Amino acid sequence: MKIDVLTIFPRLFEPFFEESIIGKAREKGKVHFQTINFRDFSTNKHQTVDDYPYGGGGGMVLKPEPIFSAVEHLTEGTEKKPRVILMCPQGKPYRQSKAEELAQEEHLIFICGHYEGYDERIRKYLVTDEISIGDYVLTGGEIPAMAVIDSVVRLLPGVLGNEISAVTDSHSTGLLEHPHYTRPPIFREWEVPEVLLSGHHENIEKWRRKESLRRTWKRRRDLLEGLELNKEEQQWLKQFEQDDE
Amino acid sequence: MKIDVLTIFPRLFEPFFEESIIGKAREKGKVHFQTINFRDFSTNKHQTVDDYPYGGGGGMVLKPEPIFSAVEHLTEGTEKKPRVILMCPQGKPYRQSKAEELAQEEHLIFICGHYEGYDERIRKYLVTDEISIGDYVLTGGEIPAMAVIDSVVRLLPGVLGNEISAVTDSHSTGLLEHPHYTRPPIFREWEVPEVLLSGHHENIEKWRRKESLRRTWKRRRDLLEGLELNKEEQQWLKQFEQDDE
Repeated sequence: MKIDVLTIFPRLFEPFFEESIIGKAREKGKVHFQTINFRDFSTNKHQTVDDYPYGGGGGMVLKPEPIFSAVEHLTEGTEKKPRVILMCPQGKPYRQSKAEELAQEEHLIFICGHYEGYDERIRKYLVTDEISIGDYVLTGGEIPAMAVIDSVVRLLPGVLGNEISAVTDSHSTGLLEHPHYTRPPIFREWEVPEVLLSGHHENIEKWRRKESLRRTWKRRRDLLEGLELNKEEQQWLKQFEQDDE
Repeated sequence: MKIDVLTIFPRLFEPFFEESIIGKAREKGKVHFQTINFRDFSTNKHQTVDDYPYGGGGGMVLKPEPIFSAVEHLTEGTEKKPRVILMCPQGKPYRQSKAEELAQEEHLIFICGHYEGYDERIRKYLVTDEISIGDYVLTGGEIPAMAVIDSVVRLLPGVLGNEISAVTDSHSTGLLEHPHYTRPPIFREWEVPEVLLSGHHENIEKWRRKESLRRTWKRRRDLLEGLELNKEEQQWLKQFEQDDE
């Protein structure tokens, strides 16, 4: 996969592209990264990329030319048009299903604004996807782009090693993860639940499923909607409700 | 404000703490950052911070000792207990209101896991807040911690300059932002809406409010729930519905 990031703060991405799982994916050739400072595509002598908004008001607006030019530079001569993704608070809320969709692509281009809004013509005539990572205000699109890239690259074949169990991750199963424990069996006065030390695999699996369901029921009841539960699990839900009274 | 970040990948934070608005906030003394590699608090000779999960299964689990020790090292002798924030997919979904709440604090400690789960005793007996930035799977808590830090620090008094209009940001007003336009008035064949060039402030404000509402109605109808709309705005909604048929 090829990933290009348009940003006026390319340095922000340096360690991200080099460290940990993402860095290893790059080293193994699973993904090729490039940052493009779209300031280099500005045609005026001060290399400005923003200007005042028509109609007045505070804030600056990213001009269309440098961003159109930078994207067209990247797609010149390519046969298949890449996805051009605008990171913005007005975008579609990002979900794991979108990560899975983007992981099928060969080439992704991310546009990261900073401080400002985007000229609407970028939104209308250049981008294929607008993504928001959540309902909170950030200073730029760089961290959101990292979040999306991280979630996509880890799904590419051969990227995740054995250190991670991708399948049982929260948001992959539809439920929040059950509690985990590791050594020591007693830390200060706090003990690991007995069942986990029992070696009885069936009971352990049942405990995990139940605690996973309990956590989801307590914290994120919205995730339970539309989930198919078996009889025992429905029984557990009733029990949680009684315990809660 | 003082912000400490526990991570085994401290390098990821270097440019983030130095560039752009966050870097300037640090230079101006509005915020003091520190990364703590909790591997330094491991007591075994290989400096491991994780171990196999009790009960079996894939994945590794972050051990309680190094993280308890690192946090206690940071809070030793402090009068007021800081917020200790665990970045994790099982956490409470992050919202702008939480950013506003955290911006009132003097000291925040972020715990970033990587690859693995956390020993449940960290969750139960050490942290004050568990935060998730969204329903997607990432390789670690570092990018989520950056997102939260970014959203909090920009709210601190004296951090945002005039280049940004904090008030009209999406998710601050409850509606998505209206479209923005800047020069040129005609880019390729695409023109800026006439009203924005008219100089008629009242019409411009009305257009913006309407387009902001239209965008929210089209993209994020969930945000309109509970919002009080005046008669004209309710009329606009009806018009959008008719236009859509």
